[in-house]
Order: sequence, then C-alpha cells, then structure tokens
Amino acid sequence: MSNGDIFVGEVLGTAILIMFGVGVCSAVNLHHSKARASGWVVITFGWGFGVLAGAYTSAPLSGGHLNPAVTLAIAVDTGEWGKVPLYILAQSAGAMLGAVLGFLVYYSQFQANRERDKAQPTLGIFATAPEVRNPVTNMMTEIIVTIGLVLPILSFGKNAGIGVGRIPGEDAGIYGSGISILLVSLLVVGIGLCLGGPTGYAINPARDLGPRIVHALLPIPNKGSSDWGYSWIPVAGPVIGGLLAGLLFTVIF
Amino acid sequence: MSNGDIFVGEVLGTAILIMFGVGVCSAVNLHHSKARASGWVVITFGWGFGVLAGAYTSAPLSGGHLNPAVTLAIAVDTGEWGKVPLYILAQSAGAMLGAVLGFLVYYSQFQANRERDKAQPTLGIFATAPEVRNPVTNMMTEIIVTIGLVLPILSFGKNAGIGVGRIPGEDAGIYGSGISILLVSLLVVGIGLCLGGPTGYAINPARDLGPRIVHALLPIPNKGSSDWGYSWIPVAGPVIGGLLAGLLFTVIF
Amino acid sequence: MSNGDIFVGEVLGTAILIMFGVGVCSAVNLHHSKARASGWVVITFGWGFGVLAGAYTSAPLSGGHLNPAVTLAIAVDTGEWGKVPLYILAQSAGAMLGAVLGFLVYYSQFQANRERDKAQPTLGIFATAPEVRNPVTNMMTEIIVTIGLVLPILSFGKNAGIGVGRIPGEDAGIYGSGISILLVSLLVVGIGLCLGGPTGYAINPARDLGPRIVHALLPIPNKGSSDWGYSWIPVAGPVIGGLLAGLLFTVIF
Amino acid sequence: MSNGDIFVGEVLGTAILIMFGVGVCSAVNLHHSKARASGWVVITFGWGFGVLAGAYTSAPLSGGHLNPAVTLAIAVDTGEWGKVPLYILAQSAGAMLGAVLGFLVYYSQFQANRERDKAQPTLGIFATAPEVRNPVTNMMTEIIVTIGLVLPILSFGKNAGIGVGRIPGEDAGIYGSGISILLVSLLVVGIGLCLGGPTGYAINPARDLGPRIVHALLPIPNKGSSDWGYSWIPVAGPVIGGLLAGLLFTVIF
Repeated sequence: MSNGDIFVGEVLGTAILIMFGVGVCSAVNLHHSKARASGWVVITFGWGFGVLAGAYTSAPLSGGHLNPAVTLAIAVDTGEWGKVPLYILAQSAGAMLGAVLGFLVYYSQFQANRERDKAQPTLGIFATAPEVRNPVTNMMTEIIVTIGLVLPILSFGKNAGIGVGRIPGEDAGIYGSGISILLVSLLVVGIGLCLGGPTGYAINPARDLGPRIVHALLPIPNKGSSDWGYSWIPVAGPVIGGLLAGLLFTVIF
Repeated sequence: MSNGDIFVGEVLGTAILIMFGVGVCSAVNLHHSKARASGWVVITFGWGFGVLAGAYTSAPLSGGHLNPAVTLAIAVDTGEWGKVPLYILAQSAGAMLGAVLGFLVYYSQFQANRERDKAQPTLGIFATAPEVRNPVTNMMTEIIVTIGLVLPILSFGKNAGIGVGRIPGEDAGIYGSGISILLVSLLVVGIGLCLGGPTGYAINPARDLGPRIVHALLPIPNKGSSDWGYSWIPVAGPVIGGLLAGLLFTVIF
Repeated sequence: MSNGDIFVGEVLGTAILIMFGVGVCSAVNLHHSKARASGWVVITFGWGFGVLAGAYTSAPLSGGHLNPAVTLAIAVDTGEWGKVPLYILAQSAGAMLGAVLGFLVYYSQFQANRERDKAQPTLGIFATAPEVRNPVTNMMTEIIVTIGLVLPILSFGKNAGIGVGRIPGEDAGIYGSGISILLVSLLVVGIGLCLGGPTGYAINPARDLGPRIVHALLPIPNKGSSDWGYSWIPVAGPVIGGLLAGLLFTVIF
Repeated sequence: MSNGDIFVGEVLGTAILIMFGVGVCSAVNLHHSKARASGWVVITFGWGFGVLAGAYTSAPLSGGHLNPAVTLAIAVDTGEWGKVPLYILAQSAGAMLGAVLGFLVYYSQFQANRERDKAQPTLGIFATAPEVRNPVTNMMTEIIVTIGLVLPILSFGKNAGIGVGRIPGEDAGIYGSGISILLVSLLVVGIGLCLGGPTGYAINPARDLGPRIVHALLPIPNKGSSDWGYSWIPVAGPVIGGLLAGLLFTVIF
C-alpha cells in the first residue's frame, strides 16, 4: 500500500462512515425527516451499515481502519508505527468531510431549526454526549467499550475462512476482505445496541472530534454548544482502549 | 451475456425489486394491512431485501444492475456504452411491471381507499416525495446519496474473496455472485436508514419514474396527485450521481 | 439421499421452522410473554431465522425444502416427481410436530387464555388469515407472493460462489449449503416485511394446514374457530404459485 | 488446543458474550440510558451479536463453545468427556467476569437506582426470570428451547461450504470458522425472538448462574432479590436440553 492509497482510502472510507452516521442521527432527530423518532434500532444499524459501506470501499486501498483506535491497536500488535500518523491524519480529514456531506444531505432539515418551535440542540447529531456526566465513569465506559470493539476485530483475523487477517501479498490490511468487514459491521451494531447507552459509543476518536469541529464551524441555525468540556473523553478513552486491546491481543495470541 | 438475457434479467430483477418496494410501502401505509404503521425499519429492510431478491435472481442473466445509475457508472468506468440503452429500457419496463404486481398483491387494501374515512394519498407508495420541497436541496440530496450508493457498489468489486467484480469468464456482471449482492442489499438498508430522511432515497431513476407512471394509470380509488412537478428530480439526481460516482471511481482506483 | 434421510430431514427441518414460527406468533400475541406487542419486525425476522434454523439442519439430509411449493417447483424444473409425495408427507408431519412443540414452549401462556379478560382467538398463532376476506384477491395474493419466494430460491442456485444449486455429488439439494440458506432466510424476512400485509404470507401449504389441524386438536382454552372456510386458499395458492414459479424458471433459464 | 488456550478462549469469549448481554439488558431497562425502553428487537439482536463477538474471538483458541449445554452436547456426540470440566469452569468464570464488565460500563446508570423514583429490581439485567412461575412448564420450555439451539448448531457442521464442523487439523472446534458463527449468532437472535417469551431464554447454564452470583455480590443500590428459588431451572433445563440434543444428533446423523 502506497502512502497515497492509504490517504485516499482512509479519507474516503471515513467520510462515507461519518456521512452515514451523521445522516442517521439527523434522520432520527431532525424535524421534517421521514425517519424522525424511529429509535435506537435505526441508529445502531445505520452506524453499523455505515461501517460496511466505508470499510469495504477503503479496504482495497488502505485496509479500511477508519478509526485511530484500530490503527493504534494494529501498531501495538505489529510493532510498525511508521504509518500511524498518516492513518490518523487521513481518518480525521475524512471524518470532517463526512460530517459536511451528512450536513448537506440534511440541509433543509437543519434549516428548520430556524423555526422557534422546532429549534433544538444539534451537537448530538455530530458528536457523542454522556447521559450522566461523570469524567471517571464516562472514561471507564469508553475504554471498556473500545476494547470490546477492537479486541474482536483483531481476533476475527485468526479465524480461517472468513477472509480476514494479513495473508501476505493478498490482503489489503487488517480487515482484508471476504466476510470480515460484514462481521465488523454487525459487531458495531452489537456494540451500539448493548454498550452504547451510557455515552453514545464514540469508540473512535476521529468519529467524535472531527464532526465536533465541523459542528463548531458550520452555519447551523440555533445550533447550541459544541461542548468542548467533554470533547477530550471520547478521544482519550478510545485511544487508551485501542492501546489496551492491542496489548491484550498480543499477550493472548 | 446475450441481449435477450440482459433484457429478461433486468426486467425480472427490477420487477421483483419494485414489487417488494411498492409492497412494503403498501404494507406500512395502507389500511387493513398486518404491517400498518410498523415504521422505518420495516421500510428500509423491506427495500434492502427486495434488492437481495431481485439482484440474485437477475445476476446470472444480466449482472443484476436494476438501476440506471449503476449501469451508467459502470459505463463510465469501462467505457462500454453500447448496451446502456438496453439496460435502461429493461429496467424501466421491469419497474412498471413490479409496481403493477405490488398493486395486485395489495389490491383489496387499495380498495379500502374508497371508504371516506380511510381515503389517503397513494403516491407515496409508488414514488418518492421530499419532506421539504426545494429543488436545489432535493437535487443535492439525491446526487450525494446516489454517490453514497454507487461508489461503494463499484468499490466492493475490488475486495478479494467476496465474489464481486468482473472476473473474466466467471462473473455475470458488476455484482457477480458470492456475498456481493448481500452486501449491496445491506448497503441499501443503510442508505435508507441514514440518508433517506429528506427525499425518500430514490437513488434509482427507474425505481421512481416507472412506478409513478403506473400510479398515474392504475384505477386506484381517490389516489391523489402523481406530482409530476417533482418527478424530474428523482430522475436527474440519480443520473448525475451515478455519472459522478463512475468518474470518482475511475479517478481513485 | 435415501428415503429415510429425506423423511427425517424434512420432518426435523419443518418441525424446527414451525416451532420458531408458532413461537414468534405466540411471543407477540399471547399475554405473559416478554415479547408481547413487539411488532411486525419481530414476526418477520422470527419466521426468517426459523427458516435458517430448520433448513441448515435438514439440508445435509434432505436438501431442506421444508415447503411443498418448493418441492413442486423443483419437480417441474427437474422432471423428477418420484419423491414428491414423500417430501410433502414429511413436511406435513413436521409442521404438525413443530406446532405442538411451539405450543409446549408457550404452554403457560396459552393457559392464560382461561382468564376472562385475557381470552383471545388463538388461530392466528397457528395459521394465516386475511385482513380483507375475498377468495379472489386472497388467492391472487398468495399465488404472486409464492412466486416471489420460489422463483428467487430457484434462481439463487444459478449464482456462482454462494454454494447453491445441485453440484453433482456435493450438494444435498436445492439449497445446498454455503450462504444460500442464509439468503433464503433473508428473502423470507423480505417477503414478510413487504408482501405479508394482506394475508399473512402462508406461501407454504404445510406451514398453514399442519398447524391449523393441530390448532383444531389441541386443548387450548377458549381457542376460537379453526376457520376451515379459509383453509383451502393458503394451500391452493402456494401450490399454484410453486408450479408457476417452476414453469417460469424453466422457461427463463 | 492446549488446556491453556481452551481456558483463555472460553473465559474471554464468554466474558465478551455476557458483557454484551448484561449490557443490552442494562441499556433497555436502566434510567439514563440512550436505549431505554427500545424493546425486544434490541434485546434479541444485542444478545445475538454478543455471540458473534465472543465466539469469533474465542474460536481460534477454544472453538468458541461459550455454553456448557453446547460443550455437553459435543461430548455426547464425540464421546470425549475429558475436557468438559475445564470448559465449564472457564465458561462460568468468563460469565462472571463479563457480568462485572457490563456493570462497569453502566456504572452511573446503576447508581441512578439510588433515586427513590427510579429504583427498580435489577436481577432481570443479570439473570432470567419466568413470566409465569411454574417449575414444570418453565423446565419444559428451557429444555425444548435449548434443543432448538443446540441441535441446529451441531447440524450446521454437516453443511459443506460454511466452514463449520471439525475438519481435522483445520478447525478449532465445533464452530470452526467461515460463516458458521454468523449463522449461530442469527440462530440465537431467532431463538430469542421466537422462543424467549416465556422464560427469557437462558439456554446456557453459565449465562444465567454466573451473572446471578455477580448480582448477589455487587454493591448495586436497591438491587432487589437474586431469586435463588428459580436459579436451578435455567441450569438444569439447558443441561438436560444439551444432553438430549447431543443424543438426538447422534441418532439422526
């Protein structure tokens, strides 16, 4: 994989993922949306199939990490840290691009926020927020849940016959191909269903920070706070969780 | 693939897709249906599994495009435009046939529209309509969402081990076989969940125009307007989106 | 496949399918069930994953037809009619066994029907009923929907790489193995979501008649009518639909 | 497989499964959760995708049984009983670990149980309880439903092309690899949807007893009874069901 392929792949894949994710949060929360108030199943399957769309698209180019926590865990496992900054840079750029695309798809719906009786905070569409604000428990939740995401992703590659793992000269990256990305996307659905209740499952620093920056910059009417006070937790938690998952994986396998 | 196979495959596959799609919109919206008011999850999974049914059925004959936007994107990528009119003709005929079949399955339910207290507009069962009517934003939405459909479809083929792509002498077309159509059908579920809120995700000119024509022709009691004023957007938007996705794919890969 | 294997396979597989199906209808409709009133998504995914459970279990023995409409369609296609009666006999016996098992799983819940304020008709748990009673449209619906089930099932076998079809000396039957049964189970979910609204999608004569007989025989408190007046439609409709699908498939491929 | 691999694999896999399962029950039942009151679909898909996460992670190490009923059924079939105690010990330890992890993820939500108007019994998050308390029917339900789980799991391995079964020198265990665990996880979703209504589908002695012990030990405010009077049924029922399924499988195949 050339540096160019990695950059294009991660920007493209993360942009698709976040366009789907910001999209589904818009779909469920904004007025004048056909999916308004359609619930947690829509949110979680929407994010999961966003992973499917983004990761299969980018896997042939960059392996489809789409998440600094995944990139860091692979680096811990392989000991190859050289391309980590490139991956994280591309993932962050892609997340911002995807948030803008999601905003454009729901442009008219965001404009409804001008109407006094429909105005509502919009940060929840872009970034996560805890239901109970407590730095210690929020951090603990994000660390454990990220391990619950990354450790299975790494382990999937040890199964024969699903096309994951780093088969030399064949696979594009950690996800590889075959059904592995499908499994990861269903895993993400499961994470959301089961473990997303307390903090909204950031589990990906780029997924949270990139769209939060875009939220701060976009001209959304009555958009409300970008809540910078909380912003470090969905970055630090998944980073720590990814590193721990990589260590655990190295110890176990 | 002979011209006859392509024609039969695309008529058959698109007819199945639209029978499922018109069916699920009838199921959720019409009176005297066991699925009445069962929500957005039913709509989106119904359309997605309609793609699964139609595309696996037609893939051995025609590659299972079922969508002029997909056909155009492949033509941009391959440079082969000769069979594009045949594909689009067959897709349009299939979409109209499927809409009639969906209507026949729900014939008694449509008759309930005679009852004064149950009469309701029926166009939404056949064709898409925006929640906020604005040609500029509606067009933008359809273009971006169609790219979000077609670019991943094309990219899926670059993954090893999922049976997509145009392996010489093996595969029937862009979808090919293996799990690729399953992935596309889940992608369509994801598109619906995440990006369908503003305009109802036409993302397929034949899917919208064919059933709209059928709506105009069928003897449905109190059927309401066929809304021709909007009809050009779900045609032009997906056509532009498909062409742009083909260009993007050619540039990236 | 020996006659013994076919018999055991179809009894076992159909019993599992119907135990799941009668189970999910009990789960949603009966009092004192954790899934009470949980909706159409539960019903349709429950039946679909019942197909997955029953068909993968029976496929190595009998090919996993589980449905006389599928057996008849294959006979039309292959011209081999000799084992059709054996298949149908086993499917009918299995459907009755499965209905009894489903009843036993929900035994306490059925007893709640003794309580005056909770008594409700129970036939809908075992057999289908139309929302609008009209023999002509009900028959038309069952015929078209059965074609929508059986034609894709037959066509799936023409796709390379999904493990369907009758590979000589390898495959057990029409479903074969690989992901093909998974696809059929998702197809059944899609049929339910999209086309089940008018009549409850019998699409399988054994699925409807077997449990209806069991309903007539079981000692369920206040169980209500077994509605024999309607019972011929969910038998005749799927039989005709299966034969037509077999003919269509033979003409097309 | 070494004893160490088996122990680590089963502890890890069962811990992941139960963390997801206790998580989803917390998500739906506790106050201050984004998924509160999101229903039966969330519960059943959450548990099913928990199986996916846990079993693919542990399959390369231990075969991914995660359930004493599965381990016992395999022992009946193969006649190899030597490692059964090791498996069951590890599964029990893993289930307790997973329950603690699920509790930690929802730590702040459990604290809300201190508030008088939000206090509610919490056992249902950790262990199962019947809707109608009757030892005979509850036992019958758990036995039949466990057979409905284990017999298909064993049979899946007889299908070619899905990567299940004990291919010598290749597969790690009963699940093996390929799509087989995906099928098992969807089977578990189906079991929940269809057959979970009466008793909450323990179908796994470790899944019920381990978290029940943890519930008794954890410092949860106003946690309510651990209901030891019922606790033997979700142990004995699945054990009997697993043994019967193993016998049935041996007789049939």
